[in-house]
Amino acid sequence: MYHSIDDMAKNNENQIILPEPTIRRLPWYLSYVRMLDNLHVEYVSSTQISKELNVQSSQIAKDLSFLNIRGKTRIGYEVHSLVEELEGYLGFNRQHDAVVIGVGSLGAALMQDRGLKNYGLNIVAGFDVRSEVIGTSLGGLPVYDISDLAAWQREHRVSIAILTVPVDRAQETAALAIASGMRALWNFTPYRIKAPDDVVIANTSIYAHLAIIYNRMHNSDSDLKQE
Amino acid sequence: MYHSIDDMAKNNENQIILPEPTIRRLPWYLSYVRMLDNLHVEYVSSTQISKELNVQSSQIAKDLSFLNIRGKTRIGYEVHSLVEELEGYLGFNRQHDAVVIGVGSLGAALMQDRGLKNYGLNIVAGFDVRSEVIGTSLGGLPVYDISDLAAWQREHRVSIAILTVPVDRAQETAALAIASGMRALWNFTPYRIKAPDDVVIANTSIYAHLAIIYNRMHNSDSDLKQE
Repeated sequence: MYHSIDDMAKNNENQIILPEPTIRRLPWYLSYVRMLDNLHVEYVSSTQISKELNVQSSQIAKDLSFLNIRGKTRIGYEVHSLVEELEGYLGFNRQHDAVVIGVGSLGAALMQDRGLKNYGLNIVAGFDVRSEVIGTSLGGLPVYDISDLAAWQREHRVSIAILTVPVDRAQETAALAIASGMRALWNFTPYRIKAPDDVVIANTSIYAHLAIIYNRMHNSDSDLKQE
Repeated sequence: MYHSIDDMAKNNENQIILPEPTIRRLPWYLSYVRMLDNLHVEYVSSTQISKELNVQSSQIAKDLSFLNIRGKTRIGYEVHSLVEELEGYLGFNRQHDAVVIGVGSLGAALMQDRGLKNYGLNIVAGFDVRSEVIGTSLGGLPVYDISDLAAWQREHRVSIAILTVPVDRAQETAALAIASGMRALWNFTPYRIKAPDDVVIANTSIYAHLAIIYNRMHNSDSDLKQE
């Protein structure tokens, strides 16, 4: 019994949990209405969102019905309120402290990406095993020795660990983070991590996405040949 | 009619296409059996993979049945052949040329991540609008002016564009890449890109994953309060 992005919804039968397809679509709506808000547009209809994002307007209305906001007939949703409701619902307007474990190229990039704050992620430190990065700072944040994680965590009590270690260190690093009290792991390695039931695991498997791109491109090639 | 990771499978009724959940699991198997191969382990059973990755062994057998490999009774799969079959099937043993558009922190990290070559992705250049990065090099790769993309692409004919631009530039940049002949877009922005039917779009929506982490952590909190 493990929680991952993929099986999260069905593993939580006793909880009111948002359907995952809805959670995946809400950030699309948010990024669009944030742009409208920046342009001082006041109202937006689900039809307009539908045209822009290629999602059926009935689906949009259904997704937004989870939120504490109602559209007005023939006018639509108030843009600024919709931004705030979406940010609140998605948890993007609260800061969630996190550490990066594995300060390679991806880990370092995440530490330097100030944009993540707009999505409620507040990275406070990095950890690594390599002496050449321990003691340095990245994007103004300290990089510590992974062997100091448990002691550091007793003081800081951070909830989220971002795993950007090499794949063969994924499981042991995850175990270390969990033992130190982390409650959620954002796993960027292609390894399927084992964890207790109460630990949230989100797999951002960029390699799987590559496989899908290649598979689909290859199928397009076959199409062309057949025509 | 657009192709994205999410609706790819159902949009291709006239093609033999691997079910997406299978494509998502195959890289898990690969990362595990690659580790075994490095340790010179000769055989692995689906039961063993099942225990390690927490996927039902019947599911594993079914997923691997798409491949040109058969396990032996009571012995299992030959590890090295399984690595090669998985790499071949997923397209990871062929190099696919790509460019990064938007050389911010994430784009720069991808250009410097030599690990992507193990997954068949060969990034050959970066493009940006900012004069301070144009003309520099990152991980040994050149960064060009985005306004030179079309001309550059006429010579290089790269298939894949990796979009790591700010969200409000996502659609226009995608349109530019498509106009220049790119056939697949790996979209790291939270924007839902519109594209013709024959262009492959893979959305790696890391922000959606954050929303899922927060949502699930919040539900765990409620659980604790109720107990």
